Amino acid sequence: MNIGDSATFSKTISESDVYTFAGITGDFNPLHVNETKAKNTIFKSRIVHGMLVGSFISTVLGTKFPGPGTIYLEQDLVYKKPVYINDTVTAIVTLSEVIDAEKNIYKFDTIIVNDDNEKVIEGYAVVKVNRPKECENASC
Amino acid sequence: MNIGDSATFSKTISESDVYTFAGITGDFNPLHVNETKAKNTIFKSRIVHGMLVGSFISTVLGTKFPGPGTIYLEQDLVYKKPVYINDTVTAIVTLSEVIDAEKNIYKFDTIIVNDDNEKVIEGYAVVKVNRPKECENASC
Amino acid sequence: MNIGDSATFSKTISESDVYTFAGITGDFNPLHVNETKAKNTIFKSRIVHGMLVGSFISTVLGTKFPGPGTIYLEQDLVYKKPVYINDTVTAIVTLSEVIDAEKNIYKFDTIIVNDDNEKVIEGYAVVKVNRPKECENASC
Amino acid sequence: MNIGDSATFSKTISESDVYTFAGITGDFNPLHVNETKAKNTIFKSRIVHGMLVGSFISTVLGTKFPGPGTIYLEQDLVYKKPVYINDTVTAIVTLSEVIDAEKNIYKFDTIIVNDDNEKVIEGYAVVKVNRPKECENASC
Repeated sequence: MNIGDSATFSKTISESDVYTFAGITGDFNPLHVNETKAKNTIFKSRIVHGMLVGSFISTVLGTKFPGPGTIYLEQDLVYKKPVYINDTVTAIVTLSEVIDAEKNIYKFDTIIVNDDNEKVIEGYAVVKVNRPKECENASC
Repeated sequence: MNIGDSATFSKTISESDVYTFAGITGDFNPLHVNETKAKNTIFKSRIVHGMLVGSFISTVLGTKFPGPGTIYLEQDLVYKKPVYINDTVTAIVTLSEVIDAEKNIYKFDTIIVNDDNEKVIEGYAVVKVNRPKECENASC
Repeated sequence: MNIGDSATFSKTISESDVYTFAGITGDFNPLHVNETKAKNTIFKSRIVHGMLVGSFISTVLGTKFPGPGTIYLEQDLVYKKPVYINDTVTAIVTLSEVIDAEKNIYKFDTIIVNDDNEKVIEGYAVVKVNRPKECENASC
Repeated sequence: MNIGDSATFSKTISESDVYTFAGITGDFNPLHVNETKAKNTIFKSRIVHGMLVGSFISTVLGTKFPGPGTIYLEQDLVYKKPVYINDTVTAIVTLSEVIDAEKNIYKFDTIIVNDDNEKVIEGYAVVKVNRPKECENASC
Protein backbone atom coordinates (compact mmCIF):
# COMPACT_ATOMS: atom_id res chain seq x y z
CA MET A 1 0.00 0.00 0.00
CA ASN A 2 1.54 3.27 -1.15
CA ILE A 3 0.54 6.85 -0.52
CA GLY A 4 -1.73 7.92 -3.38
CA ASP A 5 -3.11 4.43 -4.08
CA SER A 6 -6.81 4.68 -4.67
CA ALA A 7 -10.01 2.73 -5.37
CA THR A 8 -13.62 3.62 -6.14
CA PHE A 9 -17.22 2.44 -5.91
CA SER A 10 -20.01 3.92 -7.96
CA LYS A 11 -23.80 3.55 -7.99
CA THR A 12 -26.96 5.20 -9.23
CA ILE A 13 -29.03 5.73 -6.08
CA SER A 14 -32.60 4.62 -6.65
CA GLU A 15 -35.75 5.70 -4.86
CA SER A 16 -35.94 2.19 -3.42
CA ASP A 17 -32.41 2.58 -1.97
CA VAL A 18 -33.52 5.73 -0.16
CA TYR A 19 -36.77 4.20 1.06
CA THR A 20 -35.03 1.01 2.20
CA PHE A 21 -32.39 3.03 4.03
CA ALA A 22 -35.14 5.01 5.79
CA GLY A 23 -36.69 1.67 6.63
CA ILE A 24 -33.68 0.19 8.40
CA THR A 25 -32.50 3.37 10.12
CA GLY A 26 -35.87 4.93 11.01
CA ASP A 27 -34.82 8.21 9.38
CA PHE A 28 -38.16 9.31 7.89
CA ASN A 29 -37.10 12.96 7.69
CA PRO A 30 -39.61 14.42 5.17
CA LEU A 31 -36.66 15.68 3.08
CA HIS A 32 -36.06 12.04 2.14
CA VAL A 33 -39.52 10.45 1.92
CA ASN A 34 -42.06 13.26 1.39
CA GLU A 35 -41.94 14.84 -2.06
CA THR A 36 -44.70 17.32 -1.21
CA LYS A 37 -42.77 18.75 1.73
CA ALA A 38 -39.36 18.44 0.07
CA LYS A 39 -40.39 20.55 -2.91
CA ASN A 40 -41.13 23.43 -0.56
CA THR A 41 -37.57 23.44 0.76
CA ILE A 42 -34.38 24.90 -0.72
CA PHE A 43 -33.68 21.44 -2.19
CA LYS A 44 -36.88 21.42 -4.34
CA SER A 45 -37.11 17.62 -4.28
CA ARG A 46 -36.37 14.59 -2.10
CA ILE A 47 -32.66 14.15 -1.37
CA VAL A 48 -30.68 11.07 -0.42
CA HIS A 49 -29.70 10.48 3.24
CA GLY A 50 -26.14 11.78 3.70
CA MET A 51 -25.19 8.68 5.67
CA LEU A 52 -26.29 6.44 2.81
CA VAL A 53 -24.07 8.32 0.38
CA GLY A 54 -21.21 8.24 2.88
CA SER A 55 -21.58 4.48 3.31
CA PHE A 56 -20.11 3.91 -0.14
CA ILE A 57 -16.76 4.89 1.38
CA SER A 58 -17.07 1.96 3.75
CA THR A 59 -17.87 -0.23 0.75
CA VAL A 60 -14.54 0.67 -0.86
CA LEU A 61 -12.57 0.27 2.36
CA GLY A 62 -14.14 -3.05 3.33
CA THR A 63 -14.35 -4.78 -0.03
CA LYS A 64 -11.71 -3.26 -2.33
CA PHE A 65 -8.95 -1.21 -0.76
CA PRO A 66 -7.58 -2.17 1.71
CA GLY A 67 -10.35 -4.84 1.49
CA PRO A 68 -11.35 -7.70 3.84
CA GLY A 69 -9.79 -7.38 7.26
CA THR A 70 -10.21 -3.62 7.37
CA ILE A 71 -11.45 -2.34 10.74
CA TYR A 72 -12.94 1.15 10.92
CA LEU A 73 -11.42 3.46 13.54
CA GLU A 74 -12.84 6.78 12.36
CA GLN A 75 -14.86 8.33 9.54
CA ASP A 76 -15.31 12.06 9.09
CA LEU A 77 -17.86 13.29 6.55
CA VAL A 78 -18.26 16.91 5.45
CA TYR A 79 -21.40 17.42 3.38
CA LYS A 80 -20.88 19.83 0.47
CA LYS A 81 -23.86 19.36 -1.84
CA PRO A 82 -27.14 17.45 -1.85
CA VAL A 83 -27.54 14.16 -3.73
CA TYR A 84 -30.89 13.53 -5.42
CA ILE A 85 -32.75 10.30 -6.10
CA ASN A 86 -31.41 8.83 -9.39
CA ASP A 87 -28.05 10.63 -9.11
CA THR A 88 -24.99 8.51 -9.78
CA VAL A 89 -22.21 9.01 -7.25
CA THR A 90 -18.66 7.69 -6.98
CA ALA A 91 -16.77 7.15 -3.74
CA ILE A 92 -13.01 7.69 -4.13
CA VAL A 93 -10.71 6.45 -1.38
CA THR A 94 -7.02 7.42 -1.49
CA LEU A 95 -4.27 6.44 0.96
CA SER A 96 -2.91 9.68 2.45
CA GLU A 97 -0.86 8.65 5.47
CA VAL A 98 0.64 5.64 7.22
CA ILE A 99 -0.18 6.49 10.81
CA ASP A 100 1.42 3.41 12.41
CA ALA A 101 3.17 0.92 10.13
CA GLU A 102 3.58 -1.72 12.83
CA LYS A 103 -0.03 -1.65 13.93
CA ASN A 104 -1.20 -1.28 10.32
CA ILE A 105 -3.07 1.95 10.94
CA TYR A 106 -3.72 4.06 7.85
CA LYS A 107 -5.47 7.29 6.92
CA PHE A 108 -7.38 7.85 3.68
CA ASP A 109 -8.84 10.82 1.88
CA THR A 110 -12.46 9.94 1.24
CA ILE A 111 -14.54 11.88 -1.21
CA ILE A 112 -17.79 11.33 -3.05
CA VAL A 113 -18.42 13.02 -6.40
CA ASN A 114 -21.53 13.26 -8.54
CA ASP A 115 -21.74 12.95 -12.32
CA ASP A 116 -20.78 16.61 -12.76
CA ASN A 117 -17.60 15.77 -10.84
CA GLU A 118 -18.71 18.01 -7.98
CA LYS A 119 -17.68 16.92 -4.51
CA VAL A 120 -20.83 16.07 -2.55
CA ILE A 121 -18.90 14.71 0.45
CA GLU A 122 -15.30 15.10 1.55
CA GLY A 123 -13.50 13.84 4.63
CA TYR A 124 -11.16 11.13 5.82
CA ALA A 125 -11.09 7.64 7.24
CA VAL A 126 -8.73 5.97 9.69
CA VAL A 127 -8.58 2.18 9.60
CA LYS A 128 -6.60 -0.72 10.99
CA VAL A 129 -5.88 -3.55 8.58
CA ASN A 130 -5.94 -7.12 9.90
CA ARG A 131 -5.55 -9.04 6.67
CA PRO A 132 -6.72 -12.63 7.15
CA LYS A 133 -3.77 -15.03 6.73
CA GLU A 134 -5.24 -16.68 3.66
CA CYS A 135 -5.38 -13.27 1.98
CA GLU A 136 -1.79 -12.23 2.53
CA ASN A 137 -0.53 -13.45 -0.81
CA ALA A 138 -3.79 -13.44 -2.71
CA SER A 139 -6.84 -11.40 -3.38
CA CYS A 140 -9.71 -12.26 -1.06
CA MET B 1 -32.63 24.79 21.84
CA ASN B 2 -30.34 24.93 24.89
CA ILE B 3 -26.87 23.50 25.43
CA GLY B 4 -27.31 20.06 26.98
CA ASP B 5 -30.70 19.35 25.35
CA SER B 6 -30.74 15.80 24.14
CA ALA B 7 -32.77 13.14 22.29
CA THR B 8 -32.36 9.44 21.53
CA PHE B 9 -33.25 6.64 19.10
CA SER B 10 -32.99 2.99 20.01
CA LYS B 11 -33.26 -0.26 18.07
CA THR B 12 -32.35 -3.93 18.20
CA ILE B 13 -30.31 -4.47 15.02
CA SER B 14 -31.52 -7.57 13.23
CA GLU B 15 -29.65 -9.79 10.77
CA SER B 16 -32.07 -8.55 8.11
CA ASP B 17 -31.02 -4.95 8.84
CA VAL B 18 -27.38 -5.87 8.23
CA TYR B 19 -28.13 -7.82 5.07
CA THR B 20 -30.41 -5.11 3.70
CA PHE B 21 -27.78 -2.47 4.42
CA ALA B 22 -25.18 -4.58 2.59
CA GLY B 23 -27.65 -4.85 -0.27
CA ILE B 24 -28.12 -1.11 -0.76
CA THR B 25 -24.51 -0.04 -0.10
CA GLY B 26 -22.64 -2.96 -1.70
CA ASP B 27 -20.55 -3.39 1.47
CA PHE B 28 -20.27 -7.19 1.47
CA ASN B 29 -17.20 -7.19 3.69
CA PRO B 30 -17.09 -10.80 5.00
CA LEU B 31 -17.04 -9.42 8.56
CA HIS B 32 -20.68 -8.46 8.02
CA VAL B 33 -22.14 -11.22 5.84
CA ASN B 34 -19.88 -14.28 6.14
CA GLU B 35 -20.18 -16.04 9.49
CA THR B 36 -17.57 -18.65 8.57
CA LYS B 37 -14.92 -16.03 7.92
CA ALA B 38 -16.06 -13.71 10.71
CA LYS B 39 -15.66 -16.39 13.38
CA ASN B 40 -11.98 -16.70 12.48
CA THR B 41 -11.36 -13.01 13.20
CA ILE B 42 -10.82 -11.20 16.49
CA PHE B 43 -14.58 -10.42 16.46
CA LYS B 44 -15.61 -14.12 16.54
CA SER B 45 -18.91 -13.42 14.77
CA ARG B 46 -20.49 -11.14 12.15
CA ILE B 47 -20.57 -7.49 13.22
CA VAL B 48 -22.85 -4.67 12.12
CA HIS B 49 -21.60 -2.11 9.56
CA GLY B 50 -20.27 0.90 11.47
CA MET B 51 -22.05 3.26 9.09
CA LEU B 52 -25.40 1.57 9.78
CA VAL B 53 -24.93 2.05 13.52
CA GLY B 54 -23.82 5.64 12.95
CA SER B 55 -26.90 6.35 10.86
CA PHE B 56 -29.12 6.29 13.94
CA ILE B 57 -27.53 9.64 14.81
CA SER B 58 -28.98 11.03 11.59
CA THR B 59 -32.34 9.55 12.58
CA VAL B 60 -32.35 11.56 15.80
CA LEU B 61 -31.14 14.75 14.11
CA GLY B 62 -33.59 14.55 11.19
CA THR B 63 -36.74 13.32 12.92
CA LYS B 64 -36.54 14.28 16.60
CA PHE B 65 -34.00 16.89 17.59
CA PRO B 66 -33.64 19.36 15.98
CA GLY B 67 -36.08 17.44 13.67
CA PRO B 68 -37.45 18.21 10.18
CA GLY B 69 -35.52 21.00 8.47
CA THR B 70 -32.16 19.83 9.78
CA ILE B 71 -29.38 19.90 7.15
CA TYR B 72 -26.22 17.91 7.75
CA LEU B 73 -22.94 19.83 7.47
CA GLU B 74 -20.58 17.33 9.10
CA GLN B 75 -20.56 14.02 10.94
CA ASP B 76 -17.51 12.58 12.65
CA LEU B 77 -17.64 9.00 13.90
CA VAL B 78 -14.99 7.34 16.08
CA TYR B 79 -15.53 3.61 16.38
CA LYS B 80 -14.82 2.28 19.89
CA LYS B 81 -16.33 -1.20 20.02
CA PRO B 82 -17.98 -3.66 17.65
CA VAL B 83 -21.77 -4.05 17.49
CA TYR B 84 -23.09 -7.56 16.91
CA ILE B 85 -26.24 -8.74 15.15
CA ASN B 86 -29.12 -8.67 17.71
CA ASP B 87 -27.45 -6.00 19.86
CA THR B 88 -29.72 -3.16 20.95
CA VAL B 89 -28.10 0.25 20.56
CA THR B 90 -29.15 3.77 21.49
CA ALA B 91 -28.05 6.92 19.69
CA ILE B 92 -27.79 9.93 22.03
CA VAL B 93 -27.55 13.40 20.49
CA THR B 94 -26.79 16.35 22.78
CA LEU B 95 -26.49 20.02 21.81
CA SER B 96 -22.93 21.09 22.71
CA GLU B 97 -22.38 24.43 20.97
CA VAL B 98 -24.18 27.17 19.06
CA ILE B 99 -21.68 27.79 16.28
CA ASP B 100 -23.60 30.58 14.52
CA ALA B 101 -26.90 31.72 16.03
CA GLU B 102 -27.88 33.85 13.03
CA LYS B 103 -27.29 31.10 10.48
CA ASN B 104 -28.73 28.46 12.82
CA ILE B 105 -25.59 26.34 12.83
CA TYR B 106 -25.23 23.98 15.78
CA LYS B 107 -22.81 21.33 17.04
CA PHE B 108 -23.89 18.17 18.83
CA ASP B 109 -22.14 15.43 20.76
CA THR B 110 -23.19 12.19 19.12
CA ILE B 111 -22.68 8.88 20.83
CA ILE B 112 -24.02 5.38 20.46
CA VAL B 113 -24.16 3.04 23.44
CA ASN B 114 -24.95 -0.66 23.69
CA ASP B 115 -27.01 -2.42 26.36
CA ASP B 116 -24.03 -2.56 28.70
CA ASN B 117 -23.91 1.23 28.39
CA GLU B 118 -20.53 1.00 26.63
CA LYS B 119 -19.83 3.62 24.00
CA VAL B 120 -19.59 1.89 20.62
CA ILE B 121 -19.34 5.16 18.67
CA GLU B 122 -18.50 8.69 19.73
CA GLY B 123 -18.13 11.85 17.70
CA TYR B 124 -19.94 15.00 16.77
CA ALA B 125 -22.31 16.46 14.22
CA VAL B 126 -22.63 19.96 12.78
CA VAL B 127 -25.99 20.90 11.31
CA LYS B 128 -27.89 23.88 9.97
CA VAL B 129 -31.54 24.10 10.97
CA ASN B 130 -34.06 25.41 8.44
CA ARG B 131 -37.30 24.75 10.28
CA PRO B 132 -40.23 24.74 7.86
CA LYS B 133 -42.48 27.72 8.61
CA GLU B 134 -45.43 25.56 9.67
CA CYS B 135 -43.20 23.94 12.32
CA GLU B 136 -41.90 27.04 13.98
CA ASN B 137 -44.43 27.04 16.79
CA ALA B 138 -45.42 23.40 16.76
CA SER B 139 -44.14 19.86 16.63
CA CYS B 140 -43.83 18.56 13.07
CA MET C 1 -70.67 -16.95 -3.57
CA ASN C 2 -72.73 -18.44 -0.75
CA ILE C 3 -73.05 -17.43 2.88
CA GLY C 4 -70.52 -19.49 4.82
CA ASP C 5 -68.03 -19.83 1.94
CA SER C 6 -64.55 -19.32 3.28
CA ALA C 7 -60.85 -19.10 2.36
CA THR C 8 -57.59 -18.78 4.27
CA PHE C 9 -53.99 -17.52 4.12
CA SER C 10 -51.32 -18.64 6.52
CA LYS C 11 -47.74 -17.56 7.22
CA THR C 12 -44.98 -17.80 9.81
CA ILE C 13 -44.12 -14.17 10.54
CA SER C 14 -40.35 -13.69 10.54
CA GLU C 15 -38.28 -11.03 12.24
CA SER C 16 -37.46 -9.67 8.79
CA ASP C 17 -41.20 -9.31 8.04
CA VAL C 18 -41.61 -7.19 11.16
CA TYR C 19 -38.52 -5.11 10.46
CA THR C 20 -39.48 -4.59 6.83
CA PHE C 21 -43.01 -3.57 7.84
CA ALA C 22 -41.56 -1.04 10.30
CA GLY C 23 -39.38 0.14 7.43
CA ILE C 24 -42.19 0.92 5.01
CA THR C 25 -44.67 2.29 7.55
CA GLY C 26 -42.30 4.16 9.86
CA ASP C 27 -43.77 2.37 12.87
CA PHE C 28 -40.63 1.94 15.01
CA ASN C 29 -42.62 1.51 18.24
CA PRO C 30 -40.05 -0.13 20.58
CA LEU C 31 -42.55 -2.97 21.18
CA HIS C 32 -41.77 -4.11 17.64
CA VAL C 33 -38.07 -3.34 17.10
CA ASN C 34 -36.42 -3.07 20.53
CA GLU C 35 -36.06 -6.36 22.38
CA THR C 36 -34.49 -4.68 25.42
CA LYS C 37 -37.47 -2.41 25.94
CA ALA C 38 -40.06 -5.00 24.89
CA LYS C 39 -38.91 -7.51 27.49
CA ASN C 40 -39.73 -4.99 30.22
CA THR C 41 -43.36 -4.77 29.10
CA ILE C 42 -46.30 -7.09 29.77
CA PHE C 43 -45.52 -8.76 26.42
CA LYS C 44 -42.01 -9.88 27.52
CA SER C 45 -40.69 -9.83 23.93
CA ARG C 46 -41.09 -8.03 20.61
CA ILE C 47 -44.56 -8.42 19.09
CA VAL C 48 -45.73 -8.14 15.50
CA HIS C 49 -47.45 -4.96 14.28
CA GLY C 50 -51.21 -5.53 14.50
CA MET C 51 -51.70 -3.99 11.06
CA LEU C 52 -49.23 -6.45 9.53
CA VAL C 53 -51.18 -9.39 10.97
CA GLY C 54 -54.45 -7.81 9.85
CA SER C 55 -53.12 -7.39 6.32
CA PHE C 56 -53.36 -11.12 5.71
CA ILE C 57 -57.14 -10.63 5.57
CA SER C 58 -56.63 -8.34 2.60
CA THR C 59 -54.43 -11.03 1.06
CA VAL C 60 -57.31 -13.51 1.16
CA LEU C 61 -59.88 -11.00 -0.10
CA GLY C 62 -57.73 -9.69 -2.95
CA THR C 63 -56.10 -12.88 -4.20
CA LYS C 64 -58.34 -15.82 -3.23
CA PHE C 65 -61.91 -15.10 -2.19
CA PRO C 66 -63.56 -13.14 -3.74
CA GLY C 67 -60.17 -12.59 -5.50
CA PRO C 68 -59.05 -10.12 -8.20
CA GLY C 69 -61.51 -7.29 -8.69
CA THR C 70 -62.26 -6.98 -4.99
CA ILE C 71 -62.43 -3.38 -3.79
CA TYR C 72 -62.15 -2.70 -0.07
CA LEU C 73 -64.93 -0.58 1.45
CA GLU C 74 -64.28 -1.24 5.14
CA GLN C 75 -62.13 -3.30 7.47
CA ASP C 76 -62.70 -3.53 11.20
CA LEU C 77 -60.02 -5.20 13.35
CA VAL C 78 -60.41 -6.03 17.04
CA TYR C 79 -57.12 -7.10 18.60
CA LYS C 80 -57.51 -9.98 21.08
CA LYS C 81 -54.01 -11.33 21.70
CA PRO C 82 -50.44 -10.42 20.78
CA VAL C 83 -48.60 -12.16 17.94
CA TYR C 84 -44.88 -12.82 18.44
CA ILE C 85 -42.04 -13.01 15.94
CA ASN C 86 -41.93 -16.57 14.51
CA ASP C 87 -45.62 -17.24 15.29
CA THR C 88 -47.62 -18.81 12.48
CA VAL C 89 -51.00 -17.21 11.92
CA THR C 90 -53.94 -18.00 9.66
CA ALA C 91 -56.40 -15.47 8.28
CA ILE C 92 -59.90 -16.92 7.79
CA VAL C 93 -62.40 -14.99 5.68
CA THR C 94 -66.03 -16.15 5.61
CA LEU C 95 -68.93 -14.63 3.66
CA SER C 96 -71.52 -13.53 6.23
CA GLU C 97 -73.94 -11.26 4.36
CA VAL C 98 -74.89 -10.09 0.89
CA ILE C 99 -75.38 -6.39 1.54
CA ASP C 100 -76.38 -5.40 -2.01
CA ALA C 101 -76.61 -8.14 -4.64
CA GLU C 102 -76.97 -5.73 -7.56
CA LYS C 103 -73.97 -3.63 -6.60
CA ASN C 104 -72.02 -6.73 -5.55
CA ILE C 105 -71.42 -5.52 -2.02
CA TYR C 106 -70.61 -8.24 0.51
CA LYS C 107 -69.72 -8.57 4.18
CA PHE C 108 -67.24 -11.10 5.58
CA ASP C 109 -66.28 -12.32 9.02
CA THR C 110 -62.53 -11.90 9.22
CA ILE C 111 -60.51 -13.59 11.91
CA ILE C 112 -56.87 -14.42 12.48
CA VAL C 113 -55.90 -17.39 14.62
CA ASN C 114 -52.53 -18.54 15.93
CA ASP C 115 -51.21 -22.10 16.09
CA ASP C 116 -53.05 -22.73 19.37
CA ASN C 117 -56.23 -21.83 17.47
CA GLU C 118 -56.67 -18.74 19.63
CA LYS C 119 -58.23 -15.72 17.93
CA VAL C 120 -55.64 -12.96 17.78
CA ILE C 121 -57.82 -10.66 15.64
CA GLU C 122 -61.52 -10.66 14.90
CA GLY C 123 -63.64 -8.27 12.88
CA TYR C 124 -65.31 -7.88 9.53
CA ALA C 125 -64.73 -6.61 6.03
CA VAL C 126 -67.09 -5.00 3.52
CA VAL C 127 -66.08 -5.21 -0.15
CA LYS C 128 -67.42 -4.50 -3.61
CA VAL C 129 -66.59 -7.08 -6.25
CA ASN C 130 -65.85 -5.89 -9.79
CA ARG C 131 -64.74 -9.13 -11.39
CA PRO C 132 -62.73 -8.42 -14.53
CA LYS C 133 -64.62 -9.74 -17.58
CA GLU C 134 -61.94 -12.26 -18.43
CA CYS C 135 -62.34 -13.77 -14.96
CA GLU C 136 -66.08 -14.26 -15.03
CA ASN C 137 -65.96 -17.85 -16.20
CA ALA C 138 -62.47 -18.70 -15.12
CA SER C 139 -60.07 -18.43 -12.27
CA CYS C 140 -57.84 -15.38 -12.51
CA MET D 1 -54.07 13.98 26.80
CA ASN D 2 -57.03 16.23 25.97
CA ILE D 3 -59.94 15.71 23.61
CA GLY D 4 -58.94 17.25 20.28
CA ASP D 5 -55.20 16.67 20.72
CA SER D 6 -53.78 15.45 17.46
CA ALA D 7 -50.63 14.22 15.67
CA THR D 8 -49.71 13.30 12.11
CA PHE D 9 -47.41 11.17 9.93
CA SER D 10 -46.83 11.88 6.27
CA LYS D 11 -45.08 10.04 3.44
CA THR D 12 -44.87 9.82 -0.34
CA ILE D 13 -45.71 6.17 -1.07
CA SER D 14 -43.20 4.74 -3.52
CA GLU D 15 -43.57 1.81 -5.89
CA SER D 16 -41.00 0.00 -3.76
CA ASP D 17 -43.23 0.46 -0.68
CA VAL D 18 -46.12 -1.20 -2.50
CA TYR D 19 -43.99 -4.04 -3.82
CA THR D 20 -42.33 -4.63 -0.46
CA PHE D 21 -45.72 -4.65 1.26
CA ALA D 22 -46.97 -7.20 -1.29
CA GLY D 23 -43.84 -9.22 -0.55
CA ILE D 24 -44.38 -9.48 3.19
CA THR D 25 -48.18 -9.88 3.16
CA GLY D 26 -48.60 -12.01 0.03
CA ASP D 27 -51.24 -9.61 -1.30
CA PHE D 28 -50.39 -9.78 -5.01
CA ASN D 29 -53.81 -8.55 -6.10
CA PRO D 30 -53.19 -7.40 -9.70
CA LEU D 31 -54.63 -3.98 -8.78
CA HIS D 32 -51.42 -3.41 -6.79
CA VAL D 33 -48.68 -5.14 -8.80
CA ASN D 34 -49.93 -5.57 -12.38
CA GLU D 35 -50.04 -2.32 -14.32
CA THR D 36 -51.42 -4.02 -17.44
CA LYS D 37 -54.44 -5.36 -15.60
CA ALA D 38 -54.85 -2.30 -13.37
CA LYS D 39 -55.13 0.08 -16.31
CA ASN D 40 -58.18 -1.86 -17.53
CA THR D 41 -60.03 -1.28 -14.25
CA ILE D 42 -61.96 1.76 -13.03
CA PHE D 43 -58.75 2.82 -11.24
CA LYS D 44 -56.73 3.13 -14.51
CA SER D 45 -53.43 2.42 -12.74
CA ARG D 46 -51.94 0.43 -9.85
CA ILE D 47 -53.24 1.54 -6.45
CA VAL D 48 -51.69 1.22 -3.01
CA HIS D 49 -52.87 -1.53 -0.65
CA GLY D 50 -55.50 -0.05 1.68
CA MET D 51 -53.91 -1.75 4.67
CA LEU D 52 -50.55 -0.14 3.89
CA VAL D 53 -52.14 3.30 3.84
CA GLY D 54 -54.07 2.52 7.01
CA SER D 55 -50.88 1.42 8.76
CA PHE D 56 -49.68 5.01 8.99
CA ILE D 57 -52.35 5.46 11.67
CA SER D 58 -50.57 2.83 13.74
CA THR D 59 -47.31 4.73 13.14
CA VAL D 60 -48.78 7.86 14.74
CA LEU D 61 -50.35 5.94 17.63
CA GLY D 62 -47.26 3.88 18.42
CA THR D 63 -44.48 6.42 17.92
CA LYS D 64 -45.96 9.91 18.38
CA PHE D 65 -49.33 10.17 20.09
CA PRO D 66 -49.92 8.56 22.52
CA GLY D 67 -46.51 7.03 21.61
CA PRO D 68 -44.53 4.12 23.08
CA GLY D 69 -46.62 1.95 25.38
CA THR D 70 -49.73 2.20 23.20
CA ILE D 71 -51.57 -1.11 22.78
CA TYR D 72 -54.06 -1.50 19.94
CA LEU D 73 -57.54 -2.69 20.91
CA GLU D 74 -59.42 -1.85 17.70
CA GLN D 75 -58.96 -0.18 14.33
CA ASP D 76 -61.80 0.55 11.94
CA LEU D 77 -60.96 1.69 8.42
CA VAL D 78 -63.50 2.96 5.89
CA TYR D 79 -61.98 3.32 2.42
CA LYS D 80 -63.20 6.45 0.59
CA LYS D 81 -60.84 6.96 -2.34
CA PRO D 82 -57.95 5.11 -3.97
CA VAL D 83 -54.32 6.05 -3.27
CA TYR D 84 -51.92 5.80 -6.21
CA ILE D 85 -48.21 5.03 -6.29
CA ASN D 86 -46.31 8.30 -5.70
CA ASP D 87 -49.20 9.94 -3.84
CA THR D 88 -48.27 11.70 -0.60
CA VAL D 89 -50.65 10.93 2.25
CA THR D 90 -50.98 12.20 5.79
CA ALA D 91 -52.42 10.23 8.70
CA ILE D 92 -54.18 12.44 11.26
CA VAL D 93 -54.99 10.98 14.66
CA THR D 94 -57.19 13.00 17.04
CA LEU D 95 -58.28 12.05 20.57
CA SER D 96 -62.09 11.92 20.51
CA GLU D 97 -63.10 10.14 23.73
CA VAL D 98 -61.74 8.91 27.05
CA ILE D 99 -63.45 5.52 27.24
CA ASP D 100 -62.03 4.46 30.63
CA ALA D 101 -59.74 6.89 32.46
CA GLU D 102 -58.66 4.35 35.09
CA LYS D 103 -57.70 1.68 32.57
CA ASN D 104 -56.25 4.29 30.19
CA ILE D 105 -58.51 3.35 27.29
CA TYR D 106 -58.94 6.02 24.64
CA LYS D 107 -60.71 6.46 21.31
CA PHE D 108 -59.29 8.41 18.38
CA ASP D 109 -60.62 9.70 15.09
CA THR D 110 -58.25 8.38 12.46
CA ILE D 111 -58.24 9.80 8.97
CA ILE D 112 -55.86 9.73 6.04
CA VAL D 113 -55.86 12.58 3.53
CA ASN D 114 -54.12 12.98 0.18
CA ASP D 115 -52.44 16.10 -1.21
CA ASP D 116 -55.77 17.47 -2.41
CA ASN D 117 -56.91 17.21 1.22
CA GLU D 118 -59.44 14.55 0.24
CA LYS D 119 -60.15 11.86 2.82
CA VAL D 120 -58.93 8.54 1.46
CA ILE D 121 -59.59 6.66 4.72
CA GLU D 122 -61.68 7.50 7.74
CA GLY D 123 -62.40 5.52 10.88
CA TYR D 124 -61.41 5.23 14.50
CA ALA D 125 -58.98 3.51 16.82
CA VAL D 126 -59.32 2.31 20.39
CA VAL D 127 -56.11 1.89 22.38
CA LYS D 128 -54.88 1.22 25.89
CA VAL D 129 -51.88 3.24 27.01
CA ASN D 130 -49.25 1.58 29.21
CA ARG D 131 -46.58 4.26 29.30
CA PRO D 132 -43.23 2.81 30.37
CA LYS D 133 -42.27 4.22 33.77
CA GLU D 134 -39.22 6.04 32.42
CA CYS D 135 -41.48 7.88 29.97
CA GLU D 136 -44.04 9.18 32.40
CA ASN D 137 -42.46 12.57 32.80
CA ALA D 138 -40.49 12.77 29.59
CA SER D 139 -40.61 12.20 25.89
CA CYS D 140 -39.54 8.70 24.91
